[in-house]
Amino acid sequence: MSLALLPYISRIEELDAQAAQAAAQHISQLTVPPGSLGKLESLAIQLAGITREVKPSFTQREVVIMAADHGVCAEGVSAFPQEVTPQMILNFLSGGAAVNTLARQAAADVVCVDIGVLSTLTHPVLVQRKIRPGTANMAKEPAMTRSEAEQSIVTGIEIVEDAVKRGVSLFITGEMGIGNTTASAAIMCAMLDIPPEKAVGRGTGLDDARLEHKISVVRQALSLNQPDASDPLDVLSKVGGLEIGGLVGVILGAAANRCPVIIDGFISSVAALLARALVPASAGYMIASHASHEQGHRLLLQGLDLRPALDLDMRIGEGTGGVLGLHLVDAACRIVSEMATFESAGVTSNNEDALI
Amino acid sequence: MSLALLPYISRIEELDAQAAQAAAQHISQLTVPPGSLGKLESLAIQLAGITREVKPSFTQREVVIMAADHGVCAEGVSAFPQEVTPQMILNFLSGGAAVNTLARQAAADVVCVDIGVLSTLTHPVLVQRKIRPGTANMAKEPAMTRSEAEQSIVTGIEIVEDAVKRGVSLFITGEMGIGNTTASAAIMCAMLDIPPEKAVGRGTGLDDARLEHKISVVRQALSLNQPDASDPLDVLSKVGGLEIGGLVGVILGAAANRCPVIIDGFISSVAALLARALVPASAGYMIASHASHEQGHRLLLQGLDLRPALDLDMRIGEGTGGVLGLHLVDAACRIVSEMATFESAGVTSNNEDALI
Repeated sequence: MSLALLPYISRIEELDAQAAQAAAQHISQLTVPPGSLGKLESLAIQLAGITREVKPSFTQREVVIMAADHGVCAEGVSAFPQEVTPQMILNFLSGGAAVNTLARQAAADVVCVDIGVLSTLTHPVLVQRKIRPGTANMAKEPAMTRSEAEQSIVTGIEIVEDAVKRGVSLFITGEMGIGNTTASAAIMCAMLDIPPEKAVGRGTGLDDARLEHKISVVRQALSLNQPDASDPLDVLSKVGGLEIGGLVGVILGAAANRCPVIIDGFISSVAALLARALVPASAGYMIASHASHEQGHRLLLQGLDLRPALDLDMRIGEGTGGVLGLHLVDAACRIVSEMATFESAGVTSNNEDALI
Repeated sequence: MSLALLPYISRIEELDAQAAQAAAQHISQLTVPPGSLGKLESLAIQLAGITREVKPSFTQREVVIMAADHGVCAEGVSAFPQEVTPQMILNFLSGGAAVNTLARQAAADVVCVDIGVLSTLTHPVLVQRKIRPGTANMAKEPAMTRSEAEQSIVTGIEIVEDAVKRGVSLFITGEMGIGNTTASAAIMCAMLDIPPEKAVGRGTGLDDARLEHKISVVRQALSLNQPDASDPLDVLSKVGGLEIGGLVGVILGAAANRCPVIIDGFISSVAALLARALVPASAGYMIASHASHEQGHRLLLQGLDLRPALDLDMRIGEGTGGVLGLHLVDAACRIVSEMATFESAGVTSNNEDALI
């Protein structure tokens, strides 16, 4: 384990079993048939285990959009040109993107971090944490150095640490980076030992011929770099991306601060896979949101043992699915905070010791 | 077709194809890859077709909880005793039930209608529209008369008409009635010609032995009453429930007033099945919410061609799943109202005529 990450990683604990048990006990008294609230119940129990409170609430919540570019775009792996990365960042900053719209609905703030965009961007509210201007082309060489990969994770952790100081208590992963479904697929193949054709999808909209090409590029990157599945930092540095490393940091930072972190789509789930490989206990702090339309995502969610509640056929990233999942987190919080119990409402339970 | 229903039914039109097309055109200009917003896009297009507006919004929205009792409870088909129906109604009226909690989150009002509860209930905000005090035991005789079934539908329509006059523009179906998964399963079997073991589920929590018994009760009710699948009113009267008829009315009333109606779980979907059989064009106004954990619901949704976006393993009814679906309706509305276009944001599209 890297020395730079150690101080943070050592703070990540298992969920609080006692608080989780207390939440389960409270839920069993609410005026619904036992278990009938399904995933909202398991979510409420998880949130109690995370926060150590039976009735938590998350007033300040933040979507952290990590943005970076990918050298592998030179291979023609995306339907959109690379200049869309900075254009979309400006769109996020002016509030016009899908994630902004959905974040306003869910009362979440959006923070955008330049962790490795190719071009030079200046904007008063853009968080400037560029590690390098885009990765190298992983089809020809490692995407970045091991030190840069490590730095990307530390950056994500630091972003979360700053936010927690400002009062943020829940995080949502978001990302922007033309080419990042290619890097994500490569990481997934390396970590889960699956062939590229099962992990590579159409991204923002490739046709069949370009999908085949993208698969071959991933195969080449894996064959050339030989990433070591037992070493997540090796995988991240050889076939990853700076924004993916940043999100690994956001997840680990949230876990270190006992904050829930909602995992968005395919790219975010790949970051979750790396985070769990680095620190298994971080998995308890992850909340699934949606099953993306991107091929490979469902397989990835299974690997992560995450069961998303939203099935919207979305494949956009940005944090859009994650921020929609926030409504379900809020629902779980309201259920435990506001509902009547069988006793308080005078409703007969189906137990032998009925109250009425 | 019944004369009492005709004035309403004749007002139900197909969706507005021109408005739907205009919404699709608008969405194609938004700063996301084509089709990447998945079901949010199809929802926005449907809402335009319903309301004739590309950018609709639904300020006043209402969960209509139809409540009634079931004579078939005498056969021991539910894990909860029948007195829970009035107890839960009082819980709805005092705001302590799951649906109230989730409705507050989604800024929806909850209206509760006594359309056929066995006991006499008085409460200042309970809507009193009792048709009869519970149905008869369908395992021994028809649940109600044809005239009562028709009246239950008219009641639902009238509730919606009144709400529309108060400014409500979106409805969510909700219900309460111990025993109503049994009646719903019987309707589903009759309408879709499937065997009881595929439609009957555990309801609020039956064990294996009582599940078997519930299946045999449904089989007996179908065999005794011989409901005619080509005549939805016959099916509703013989093996249905007053709250199910009331929800058929809510759905038809919403469609007659060009309002979207979010369909909750198993019982609500059975009402949707009857509504569509009565007026095929009403299907366009229905919005799926969640796939309930109740066996039969997925099969039912397939029959209705509804694709729910929420998968929460819930099996509670009340309107809980429907009101969670409201966040997705709001998300679809925000997407079309608030998002930047490729042109306004200066983002390169992936078309040949790129803007930058």
